Amino acid sequence: MIKTVTVVGATGAVGRIIIRLLEERRFQAEKFRFLASKRSAGKTIEFRGEPHTIEELTHDAFAPDELVIASTPDDIAAEYLPHAIEAGSRVIDESGYWRMNPDVALVVPEINPQAALDAKGIIASPNCSTTQMVLALKPLHDAAKVTRVIVSTYQAVSGAGLQGTADLEEGSRAHLAGQAYTYEAFAFPIAFNAIPQIGSFKDDGYTSEELKMVRETRKILGDESLQINATCVRIPVANCHSETITVETERPVSPEEARELFSNFPGLEVMDDLSTDLYPMPATCTDRDGVYIGRIRRDISHPNGLSFWCVSDNLRKGAATNAVQIAELLSKSS
Amino acid sequence: MIKTVTVVGATGAVGRIIIRLLEERRFQAEKFRFLASKRSAGKTIEFRGEPHTIEELTHDAFAPDELVIASTPDDIAAEYLPHAIEAGSRVIDESGYWRMNPDVALVVPEINPQAALDAKGIIASPNCSTTQMVLALKPLHDAAKVTRVIVSTYQAVSGAGLQGTADLEEGSRAHLAGQAYTYEAFAFPIAFNAIPQIGSFKDDGYTSEELKMVRETRKILGDESLQINATCVRIPVANCHSETITVETERPVSPEEARELFSNFPGLEVMDDLSTDLYPMPATCTDRDGVYIGRIRRDISHPNGLSFWCVSDNLRKGAATNAVQIAELLSKSS
Repeated sequence: MIKTVTVVGATGAVGRIIIRLLEERRFQAEKFRFLASKRSAGKTIEFRGEPHTIEELTHDAFAPDELVIASTPDDIAAEYLPHAIEAGSRVIDESGYWRMNPDVALVVPEINPQAALDAKGIIASPNCSTTQMVLALKPLHDAAKVTRVIVSTYQAVSGAGLQGTADLEEGSRAHLAGQAYTYEAFAFPIAFNAIPQIGSFKDDGYTSEELKMVRETRKILGDESLQINATCVRIPVANCHSETITVETERPVSPEEARELFSNFPGLEVMDDLSTDLYPMPATCTDRDGVYIGRIRRDISHPNGLSFWCVSDNLRKGAATNAVQIAELLSKSS
Repeated sequence: MIKTVTVVGATGAVGRIIIRLLEERRFQAEKFRFLASKRSAGKTIEFRGEPHTIEELTHDAFAPDELVIASTPDDIAAEYLPHAIEAGSRVIDESGYWRMNPDVALVVPEINPQAALDAKGIIASPNCSTTQMVLALKPLHDAAKVTRVIVSTYQAVSGAGLQGTADLEEGSRAHLAGQAYTYEAFAFPIAFNAIPQIGSFKDDGYTSEELKMVRETRKILGDESLQINATCVRIPVANCHSETITVETERPVSPEEARELFSNFPGLEVMDDLSTDLYPMPATCTDRDGVYIGRIRRDISHPNGLSFWCVSDNLRKGAATNAVQIAELLSKSS
């Protein structure tokens, strides 16, 4: 059994759900510690019905043999997590900072659990928009080798943290009242708008979020030949990312075969019945741990193409659930 | 000069804007008539500062040599517009009913004006999601032959009529207040949600809206070989449709060439400067008559691919503006 679980970033949007999941899933450990920035240190949070004092995240905060689950901004992960490794802890990191480091395992437990078990250093959890897509791609890739992916995202504001959620709520309220509102998490109003930029602009006119979907997907599937084109868009949805995904495979995969492949793969759930207007939507998938797939159909523009619609709770499977699943994997093997 | 302009569906979401545009653009005619259903007949609307009584739309409502601009549901267009043609009027129709009829011209004035001038019967204006896409495709198709299009839409509620707009506003208000709201224009809540179905389900798992984008685009460009795969999604935006568009062309088109082609084509405007976070968004394109393009970049998944983001006011260029432009074209040639 794990001796100590240490949640870093315990007061953030994802940290709060990690804590809820550790409760819900009855994660076994002798001790639980909760770390956050100086601002939150000293405050109390409830865990399993008992108050716990939040400790300050410092370089010396880590002891040997802890299992650290961290969800912080990139710069915090860059600075503090090496100290946890040095102290002899195992680290599961939600941030974007370490994922593409060749010494870091990038893990979705349903896809590459062994990478987590073999990891010597940090184990990274992928970007939310990557996780749900790569999980959907995996059974198709195994069955018929995916050669090309074209994805457009419809991303919720909760991906921008608690302030993102506050911005959508307060911005919507203000807009409906004809009042002004100053957004903090977004460069433009998100209420009743769509913003075709998530992250900063990088190479070739792509954003950092779009390139994460390319690079992280290749790393998790272990296939650098996979061609991926992503467009990431923020929309005024509180929680759950949606994606339109069109793939080309080496041999044609019929919608019937795809439905079968998705249905049989752990973590995926097919919600696809046109006769009853059944498909996943943010409103129906929030607070759920799976990745939900609908609108499965032949891509009528390509002989080996398949299109579908994929929704998942970006704070759950896109972040907290995936991290806690990695923790469970390590716990079982320890 | 046109003798009489008759606006059918004068009280609808698009009809109201047609009337505003006839004022703004100083459309020349001796007489303007405004028709609507029995429910609205007898009411008064203001046009150019003077009150006009709304007449009831009946089979006998049309006189010879009128220019009829109609924006009604499909069943109304099916029933009434043939009577206008029989009466000797020319008819511009916004509905979806007549567009694919082989005797009907389907016109975007910047692309195929001659089809309107040659038309013997009804002249149809395309579906909103088609119009903005086909306008963006046209210069690429002329320069390098587009062979395949993959498009995902982010469509505003105003496309579902005045009730769609009311549903988003009232539904959002209710959601923020923690109250229930019964949606009338949508099968599911649209506030803070995304619905991956617009129209009814048709062949191969595609919706009527998606197949309109395929068939209407081919008809307008006069190219039945063009392969198109569309996913149409309703998002909680009041007005303006956005689209992610990825094309394959017979020869590669660089982003620089594409920018040049778009900039030089009438009706298109490039808003694309990464250094200043400039790209079109619903919030910045509403109440404007153009089709706005940004995020122009090489499709990194295909040697002959190009990706971009396209926003347009679905009630303006997607409907009313296109219809009034067709009317202006007929007016000039009459």
